[in-house]
This record gives sequence, C-alpha cells and structure tokens, in this order.
Amino acid sequence: MSRRGVKFGAFVFVCQLVFLLLFAFLAKYDDTAQPKDTDPTNMVAQYYPMFQDVHVMMFIGFGFLMTFLKLYGYSAVGVNMLVAAFVLQVALIVRGFIHSDIAGGERFPINITEMLSSDFAAATVLISFGAVLGKTSPLQLLIMAIIETILAQLNEYTGVHKLHTSDIGESMYVHVFGAYFGLAVARVLYSEETEENSKEGAVYHSDIFAMIGCVFLWLYWPSFNGGATSGDEQHRAVINTYLSLAACTIVTFAISAMLDNKGRFDMVHIQNATLAGGVAVGTTADMPLEPWGAVLMGTVAAIISVVGYKYITPALTRFLKLHDTCGVHNLHGMPGVLAGIAGAVMAALSTRDKWGESLCEIFPARAGMNATIPCDADLAMTRTALEQGGYQMAALCMTLVIAIVGGALTGLLLKLPIWDAPQGDMVFDDHANWEVSDYNFPQVMGDKGRSNGETDSNTRV
Amino acid sequence: MSRRGVKFGAFVFVCQLVFLLLFAFLAKYDDTAQPKDTDPTNMVAQYYPMFQDVHVMMFIGFGFLMTFLKLYGYSAVGVNMLVAAFVLQVALIVRGFIHSDIAGGERFPINITEMLSSDFAAATVLISFGAVLGKTSPLQLLIMAIIETILAQLNEYTGVHKLHTSDIGESMYVHVFGAYFGLAVARVLYSEETEENSKEGAVYHSDIFAMIGCVFLWLYWPSFNGGATSGDEQHRAVINTYLSLAACTIVTFAISAMLDNKGRFDMVHIQNATLAGGVAVGTTADMPLEPWGAVLMGTVAAIISVVGYKYITPALTRFLKLHDTCGVHNLHGMPGVLAGIAGAVMAALSTRDKWGESLCEIFPARAGMNATIPCDADLAMTRTALEQGGYQMAALCMTLVIAIVGGALTGLLLKLPIWDAPQGDMVFDDHANWEVSDYNFPQVMGDKGRSNGETDSNTRV
Amino acid sequence: MSRRGVKFGAFVFVCQLVFLLLFAFLAKYDDTAQPKDTDPTNMVAQYYPMFQDVHVMMFIGFGFLMTFLKLYGYSAVGVNMLVAAFVLQVALIVRGFIHSDIAGGERFPINITEMLSSDFAAATVLISFGAVLGKTSPLQLLIMAIIETILAQLNEYTGVHKLHTSDIGESMYVHVFGAYFGLAVARVLYSEETEENSKEGAVYHSDIFAMIGCVFLWLYWPSFNGGATSGDEQHRAVINTYLSLAACTIVTFAISAMLDNKGRFDMVHIQNATLAGGVAVGTTADMPLEPWGAVLMGTVAAIISVVGYKYITPALTRFLKLHDTCGVHNLHGMPGVLAGIAGAVMAALSTRDKWGESLCEIFPARAGMNATIPCDADLAMTRTALEQGGYQMAALCMTLVIAIVGGALTGLLLKLPIWDAPQGDMVFDDHANWEVSDYNFPQVMGDKGRSNGETDSNTRV
Repeated sequence: MSRRGVKFGAFVFVCQLVFLLLFAFLAKYDDTAQPKDTDPTNMVAQYYPMFQDVHVMMFIGFGFLMTFLKLYGYSAVGVNMLVAAFVLQVALIVRGFIHSDIAGGERFPINITEMLSSDFAAATVLISFGAVLGKTSPLQLLIMAIIETILAQLNEYTGVHKLHTSDIGESMYVHVFGAYFGLAVARVLYSEETEENSKEGAVYHSDIFAMIGCVFLWLYWPSFNGGATSGDEQHRAVINTYLSLAACTIVTFAISAMLDNKGRFDMVHIQNATLAGGVAVGTTADMPLEPWGAVLMGTVAAIISVVGYKYITPALTRFLKLHDTCGVHNLHGMPGVLAGIAGAVMAALSTRDKWGESLCEIFPARAGMNATIPCDADLAMTRTALEQGGYQMAALCMTLVIAIVGGALTGLLLKLPIWDAPQGDMVFDDHANWEVSDYNFPQVMGDKGRSNGETDSNTRV
Repeated sequence: MSRRGVKFGAFVFVCQLVFLLLFAFLAKYDDTAQPKDTDPTNMVAQYYPMFQDVHVMMFIGFGFLMTFLKLYGYSAVGVNMLVAAFVLQVALIVRGFIHSDIAGGERFPINITEMLSSDFAAATVLISFGAVLGKTSPLQLLIMAIIETILAQLNEYTGVHKLHTSDIGESMYVHVFGAYFGLAVARVLYSEETEENSKEGAVYHSDIFAMIGCVFLWLYWPSFNGGATSGDEQHRAVINTYLSLAACTIVTFAISAMLDNKGRFDMVHIQNATLAGGVAVGTTADMPLEPWGAVLMGTVAAIISVVGYKYITPALTRFLKLHDTCGVHNLHGMPGVLAGIAGAVMAALSTRDKWGESLCEIFPARAGMNATIPCDADLAMTRTALEQGGYQMAALCMTLVIAIVGGALTGLLLKLPIWDAPQGDMVFDDHANWEVSDYNFPQVMGDKGRSNGETDSNTRV
Repeated sequence: MSRRGVKFGAFVFVCQLVFLLLFAFLAKYDDTAQPKDTDPTNMVAQYYPMFQDVHVMMFIGFGFLMTFLKLYGYSAVGVNMLVAAFVLQVALIVRGFIHSDIAGGERFPINITEMLSSDFAAATVLISFGAVLGKTSPLQLLIMAIIETILAQLNEYTGVHKLHTSDIGESMYVHVFGAYFGLAVARVLYSEETEENSKEGAVYHSDIFAMIGCVFLWLYWPSFNGGATSGDEQHRAVINTYLSLAACTIVTFAISAMLDNKGRFDMVHIQNATLAGGVAVGTTADMPLEPWGAVLMGTVAAIISVVGYKYITPALTRFLKLHDTCGVHNLHGMPGVLAGIAGAVMAALSTRDKWGESLCEIFPARAGMNATIPCDADLAMTRTALEQGGYQMAALCMTLVIAIVGGALTGLLLKLPIWDAPQGDMVFDDHANWEVSDYNFPQVMGDKGRSNGETDSNTRV
C-alpha cells in the first residue's frame, strides 16, 4: 500500500458507497422495467441498437482515439474507462435530482433512455479529458468529472426545458461544453514544463491504435446524433450525419495534403478532423437541412478543424499558454460552435409549410405559429422563427459562459497540491499511473527521461 | 506436408464431414426460416442486434483479451477463432440431439436463437481455453471443445429443464462450468516447466491489444445477460448489467491502486476484474434486483476478482500446482459462484407481490404459489420460494461437480502424447502453431529461448 | 504547399463541389424522411442495425484487414477511409442517375437503404484497392473509384433490373466485379520493381492489427448477405452465412496446416480464406440452400481460397505478371465465381413446391411458373427454372467481362504519369503519403531502403 494508492482508493470507495445509498433510497426501475408491468412498451427494442453504438463510441471511440501518445496508451484506454464508468453513475444520479421531484418524495427512474443520456454525459467529460490528457492524475479527473457533470446537466436542463431549444446531437450541450470546460481547466493547469516534454508524440503503431477509436467514432456518429429521437426526425439525423461525415472526410484529406510542404497527409488531421462533420451537423441533424446542407456543413467543419490543428492550436499555446493535448478545440470546440450557429440559423428560417409537423416536434415553443395545420402541442407559447433563432444563440452563449467559468474554477481546485498530479518526467507517461510492461519499441528504451525531441514528428503541437 | 499438419488437418476434415452429414440428415431450417412460411414472426428483428453483440464478444472479445501475451497473439485471436467456429457447429448439433426428438425421426431446427445459444456454448469453451492458454495445441483444444460442449449442454439442459432453475446470463451454466472445467484440465496438464517460462508476460502494445477485447466484452455484456429474454425482464437485465459493470470498474481501479506498493494500477486487473461485474450479476440480471443491488454485486465482484488475481492465483499455483494463464478463476470462476448464490438468495426471497408476472416467467416451477393473481403457466408445480432457492443451489453444485470431474478426465485424455502439445520453449510461443512474421519489438529478438525473466513485470501470476 | 498536394487537394475540392451541386439540384430526402410525413414507415428501425454492421465492415473491416503490411498501416486504414467516404457520395449520385428519372425532372431520394447500397458500392472499390494496395497513389484510387462505381452500378442495374437475376449478398455484382476489376488494373500497372520490394511483408503486430479487420468482416458478414432483404429470406441469409463461415474457418485452418512443411498455420490464410465462405454463399444465402448446403459452400470456399494463396497467386505473378497485394483473387474472385455458379444451379433446380412464395420474391421473373399457388407478382414473365439458371450465368459472365475490360482500360488511364504513383522505395511505404511517426519496431529503423528481404517470412505471394 502507498499513501497515493490509499487516497485514490478511499475516494473511489466513498463515492461508490454514496452512489449505492443514493440508488437505494432515491432510484427505481422505470415503469417499463418493473416486473409487474404486463404489457411494456418495448423500449429496449427501440433504443438499444443505437444506445450500444453510442456506448462503443464512449469506451472504444474516445478510449482508443487517445492512444496516439506513444507512452500513454494504458491511460488513454484505461483511465478513459474509469472516468466513463464513473460518470455513468454520477450522471444517472444528477439527472435524477434535476429531472425528478426528489424533494417531493419521488424516486427517479432508470431506463434505457436514461442510460443513453448518461453516456452522453460521459462524452462531455471525456472531451474535457482530451484537453488535459497526460497532464492530470486519475484523482483530478474524477473530481473534474463530478463538477463538470453537475454543471453540464444543469446547463442542458436550462437550455432544453427553460429556453426550449433544440440540440439533438448535443453539439452545444456536450461538445461545446466539454471542449471549453476542458480548455479552461487546461489553461489554469498550464505548466511550462509540459512544452519541453518529448513524450508528447506518437509512434507508428500508437497512431494505428488511435485509428480504431477514430473509425468507430466516425461510424457510429449517426447513432449519436439520431439515437435520442425517432420517426422521420431520426431518419434525417442519420442521413445528414452520414453525408456530413463523408464530405468532411474527403475534404480533411484534401486540406491536410494542401497544407503540407510535401503534399502528404498528417495523421493528427485524419484521426480528428474527419470527425468534425459529425459535431458540426449535430444541432441541425434532425432538421430539414437537405442533403446539400449536410454536405456543406461537413465541408466547412473539415476546413475549420484542419486549419485549427495546423495554425490555431500552436498559436493558443504560444500566445495564451493554453495546451490542448488532443486538440479538442478543433474537433469539438469550433465545430460545436458552428453547429450551434447553424441551429440558430435553421430555427430562424423555419416555417410550418416547409417543416410540417417536425416544427412542433423539434421546437415545441413554436407550436401554432405560422401554421396552417395546428400542432398538437399543448404549450401555449407562440415564438416566431426569429425568436427561436435568438433562443438557440442564447443557449450557445450560456453554454460557453458556464463551461469556461466552471472550467476555470475547477482548474483552480485541481491546482491544489493534494491530487497527485503528474510532475516532470511523469507527464504523458503511463509510469505515473501504471505498472508498465516492457516497451516493444526501441526508441524509448533506456531513455525514458530524454527531452531532445528529435524524433517527434507527429506531436500534437 | 508434415505428420503434425496431416494429423490436425485430417481430424478437422473428418469432423467437418461428420457435421455436414449430421446437418444433411438431421437438421432443418426452423419454421420461421422456411420459404413456405408466408407470414413469419420476425425473429431476426427481435434477436439479431443482441446476437451480433454476443458474436462480437466471442470472437473480438475473447480473442483480443487473450492477446496480452507478448508472443502468443496470433494464437490468442486466431486459435480462438478456430475453436469458436468449431464449437458453433458442435453446439448446434449437440443441442439438436438434446432438445429434439432425433430418435423419433424429428429433425432439429436452426434459427437465430439456436445461433445465440451456440455462441453461449462457445463462450464456455473459450473460458476454459483461457485457463490453458499457451500450454495446449490446437488439436487438444478441439478435443476438449467436443467433450466440454457435450457435458456443458447436458448440464444446462438438466439445470433448466429438469431442475427448473433460472440463469439468464448463464453465469452458472457458462461461466462457472467453463472456468472450473478449464481449471481441472489445467491442473491435470500442470508442468513445472511452465513456471520457468519467461514468455508468460506482456509487452506494452500487447496489453493495448488486449484492451480491445476487454472493452468490447464490457460494452456488450448487457446483450449477453439480456439477449435470450424479452419484455421487462430484458429491460432489467440491461439496466442491472450496466450498473453492475460501472460499479465494478471503478472499484477495480480503486483496489488495484490500493494493493500496489506505489499506488499504481495493474493492467491485469483492469483487463479482467472490470468484467467480473457482468458475470456476478448474470444469474439475477432479469430479476428485480433493484439498481442498488446491481451496484452492490458489481462492487463485491471487483473486490473478489482483484484479490483473486493478486493473492489467490499465485497461491493456487504454489500450493495446488494449478496454473491459470488468464486467471479465469478470478474473472469467471468466483464471480460465477457468487452469481449462482445470489440467484439462490433472490429465489428464496421471491414473492408474487413483489415480482408480479415475472415470478412465473423466471421460475415457471413456482407458478401459482404466493400469488393473488394466478400465472398462466400450465405447469402443475408449486414450489415455495425457499424450495426454488434450494434448486438454484443444487444447480450450482451440480455444475461444479460435472465441470471439475469432466475437466479432470478430459485433462487425462489430453495428456496422451499424441496431441502434439507444446513443449519447452514452445510454451506461450506462437512459433508452436504459426509461421511467424518478424517481431516488431526488440527484447525478444535473438533470444527466443531466454528464460531469465528479468523483464516480465506484467506476468499473470 | 507542394505541387502534389495542390493537385490532390484541388481534385478533391472540385469533386466535393460537384457533389454538393448535384445534391442541391437533383437529390431529396426520401418520403419516409420528409418532415411532412406524419406516420412514416420506420425504415431506420428495420434497416439500421444491419446497415451499421456493413458500415463497420467497410471502414474497420477492409481498413484493418489491409494493415498487415509492416510499413503501410496508415494508408491501409486511412486511405481506405478516404476512398470509402468518397465512394459513398459518388454511389448515391450515380445510383440516383440510374434509378431515378433525372432527365424527366425527378429528384433522386436518399434514405437508409440507399445508404446501405452505397456502402455495398464502396465494398466493390475497396476490394479492387486490395489488389493494388501499396502500388497506387490516393489520386489514382479516387480516379479508379469514380470509373469503377459507374461501371459497377450499371452492371448491377442491368443484372438485377434487365436480366432479373438474384444476388442478395452481391457476390457477383460486388465481389466478382471488384476483384476482377482490381486485378485488371493491377495487371496493367504491373512493374518488375514491385517484386523486389522487401517492404511487402508483415511484422508481428501488423498481423494482429489485420486480425481486427478480419474478425469484424467475419462477424458481420451475415448482415452483408442479409441486410437488403427481410422476412424468412433474411432469416435464411443469416443462418446460411453463419454456417458457411463456421465451416470455412475450420477448414481453412485444416488446409493451411496440411500444406505447411511443419504443420503450422499461415496468417495470410487465416486473415483471408476464413472469409471466403461469406463470399461463396452470397448469391444463394436467401435461397433454401439447407444447412448442409451452406456448410458445403464454406468448405469448398476454404479449399479454393487457401490453394489460391499458396499456389495460384504466385503463379499469376510469375506467369501473368499479375501482382495481387491482398490476394483478392482468392478471397473475392474465385469464391465469388463459385457463388455465381451456385446461384445458377440453385435457380435451375428451383421449384414452387420447394421454394414456396420465396420463388417469386427471389426470382420475380419466374412468377407463376410451376406453381400451384400463384405468386402476387404482376410481372407477366414466366421463366422456367433452367432459363433462370441461364440468366444467372449470363449475369456472371457479363460481370466478368465488364470488370476485366473496364479495369484494363482504367489501368491504362492510371498509367499516365500525372497521378503521382509511388515509385521505387515508396512502394508499400507510408512515407509516400504520410508524415510518418517514429517506427516502433527495430528492423526497419535506419534501413528504410533495404531490399535484401531476408526477414519477409510472411509476404503475400
């Protein structure tokens, strides 16, 4: 036993005990999962396949995408699993408190859609993890996970249930929030030492491991953007995401080659910017964006994202002392903002004639407006298209503010010297967290502390 | 050609010919797959997604989980594929003989649920494979697969159809059976030589390959525990498994860090003990265990499993001469026994008021008991809760006895010197079975026979 | 920027702009995805799970299967992603032109089944990619993709809608076409230089990466063969493919061991020939082939495929100057021809009594023939079984001719010196296309140009 191990272990055990008690006294199976229900709506049949796709994105997708660092693969996939499994429980409970009348004696229900929402909540934290990858201890990440999940769920609740906005693929409530929260934490935790660390680079096979994560994220993104809806909205979400990603991918290859001085592709771009199309189309995926609109979103996202990796991330580090290990600003941040703006524009252009019943389903606060056929919604609100667009923009701004302020304050808390943050040589190194097997690549054997950096051709700047 | 190759090839060809003849004379498509059926129940729509998840668990999950050994990756994923594909056919046939009236001239039906059951049958053998990984030839494994599949299917048939027990995630009939059968085989095949073999360890990237298997097993476990049921039972199975695994995962990290002298995580624990929650909740997954109950099962499973890897497995080797390569005792054995006991306890506490119609669906032999509303079951049995609990315990004991005795006898058969078992340097080495490509890691180049073991920091012990 | 990069980038940007315009002026959401549709048929629920399986096959399956080359992993998985994403868009558009009345002012519809068909179209090109892997530039591949997609879609349209043939798993229209088209291209592009390249081999971990692709292809193949159908046809497609693959796998291991001089398995065979059963049963998968018929197809496919890798591929190289990097002739070519012939035989033997209503569903041109119960089909055609068999053979021959002639002409076009084809040392080397990270394997460090080939025990030849 060691002081560090006992501290971490005790923290987790206390958390797990608290979770257990909260589940025991405040949770219940949803009615559709109750044994007395004789004729349940088969929610599993409806939601399970897409839920599992999203589940794979969280654990395989994020986990392996982050294995690109040559000496941080165990932590990428292992600590990713720890953080995600932790958030699944935190999110179920936090959502229970927010969405159910706990104070009124109600128990919060657990079902397959709550499981899906908890996976989305995990995505938020895992995106932030990408910004601080290699520079934080597991304990810091769990502290961050608790605070971030609470704030993100409150933000989402306000956006959806108070501002009545739409964000089917959670590009604002998950991607923008996770990215800017993580960036704020990374800014506060910034250390000059990190910049001199030669371990921040890939080896050949670590980059191929990372492609496992990239491709699974890419493949299942239509389930992420369409998993929480149904009917024609779901069908459009799937089509739009598929088209946006396809366009984004080939354009990423195009710009990556154009910006290189020898016309070659850069693995960093391929692993990340190819996915920006999924983020960028997230808010508008279920809207009648039309196929060309989806393709356009993917194209713009690819350009923003590759340019971000090539020029913006290095500039942020140099001028703002903001070190973003995975470049989440380029994959989740800017494309997420783009998605939010696109959502506002679509909302401002929405009409009952063009959108049909989807208008009321996507924007319940617009029920009855501009309609020849009235919607069935019982809300008495009658927002205009422009008003709805304004609310969408307001939700985006609120998300940015809460994420950045919340992240900065969390960063201050994480700076306390009690969380066993990795120091010096241990940054970007699995030795900080793991009993490590023999390396199977020669250039790091015997020079674990080297800092000459002569071979780091693939560092994330 | 070589004597060894011809022996193996001839064995497989004869088996495949026998399978072909048995399929030709005794099998048929199930009615729902018959071309004359004009309005089939769409079994594919209902079962296929979860079937495919389980299918991935068998071939990717088990296959890659076993790639952790530095020099045995081809065999892990390749021979796993051979054995699984072999068992799929054996199990279809064996199940046909057991469940259909072949003697009465009936043909046994093949459909998607039989395919799912055959995948479960494969799991049984693949668990046993884990205990003897690296120490057996492909031929030995196929012999073992035939015997084990017959015994396991007879055991399951007796437990389900004669003792009328419930084990929805097959924690007893698959996990306990597979683990103790494999351990008995491993005990009989024990050789001092194995203990001195320095190849029983991981390199950095082999451990990351193993995480592919681990994570896919983890993700799709709700499909394993819920794939064979439906309705609210299935919904609960999915929820309980999800919660149990989430709790199990964070507790595994906690104990792993607490037991290490520097507070670090051990990859062996993460790859394996995180999954114990899926096993432990298997028997009770469809029961009204409540969310806190699921979380508790996962927590206990993690503790048992990590303690097992850290202390019990080395003790078994030292004192019982039982070498368990993958530690199946800790992942499948003890958590499976825990699952069986939990199933008995739940059965003993079950009441019609609390369980509703699920009581009859899960325990058909209890139909009519303690009920205000009678079940529709046409069984005339009227077991009490305590009796049902007793039967569950009896099924667990029967499983242990058949597995251990069957495994020991199978081990004796496999000791015959005709099966080309790997010897000396060939233990834990792909050279025994494969034409091997260049290694891409330096520490094994040029010293394939080394036995100093100085770098095996990650051996399974 | 570089000339090469700008050329590639400009080409892709122009293509993406053309795609965008074509989508804008000629495409629309399918009715079931239109927002005004109040009660849509839930096509997503019906098709999405199998669509996603096929999607995984394209990007993970093909992508990782080709990572076996030690220095070409980035290109395998990365350029595979580029080509597939490119074809998804090309195929949607080409299919729109072929299947909709564009000239008459109609817009072509996009829905989940069109997405599935586009993934099939991608498979065609990715198979051809396998034949020229390592020897072509990304630009050459995109040129090839456009031409091949047009020809393959025209061929399929003619086969299905003019010749009224059946090929549910697209063994003729995808596998045979893709293989022989790619082989014709490879023949025309043949260079003596390639044969002396020592980079055409695997290292230990690259072969394990390749197994990720192999196993996912293997697992999801039932979705490939059954994804486009429904009802009992789909159930049979799933069963037949499962059985064929299981038999194919164990027979592949058997022959591989028998043909080796030390009785060992060859990774090349395991990675590829195990999949031949999926191809071989593709045309007949939905027919009443019976379980034994499926097992027989898998057995024959394994024998053909392993013999192909061992003897035919080297002979093609030596005598025909045809270099087939991935051996697509053995995995897709010969098994696809076998599938086509089997389809013709089944058609020639088909009767209404045995096939029931499936006769009309599978062969609409046979409606009304040999039937006691008339089919509902409104086609007035009344082919005999033998005629239908003849048409199936005609479709196979047409496919071979169009693929070979089209591939040869495409090869000539690709020989033009303007496409930046890799030369000399750059063949089979990621340096041609990528900024490459440190290698993590010692034997290629510092000797990137070596050509002694002493360690290439695992070359595909």
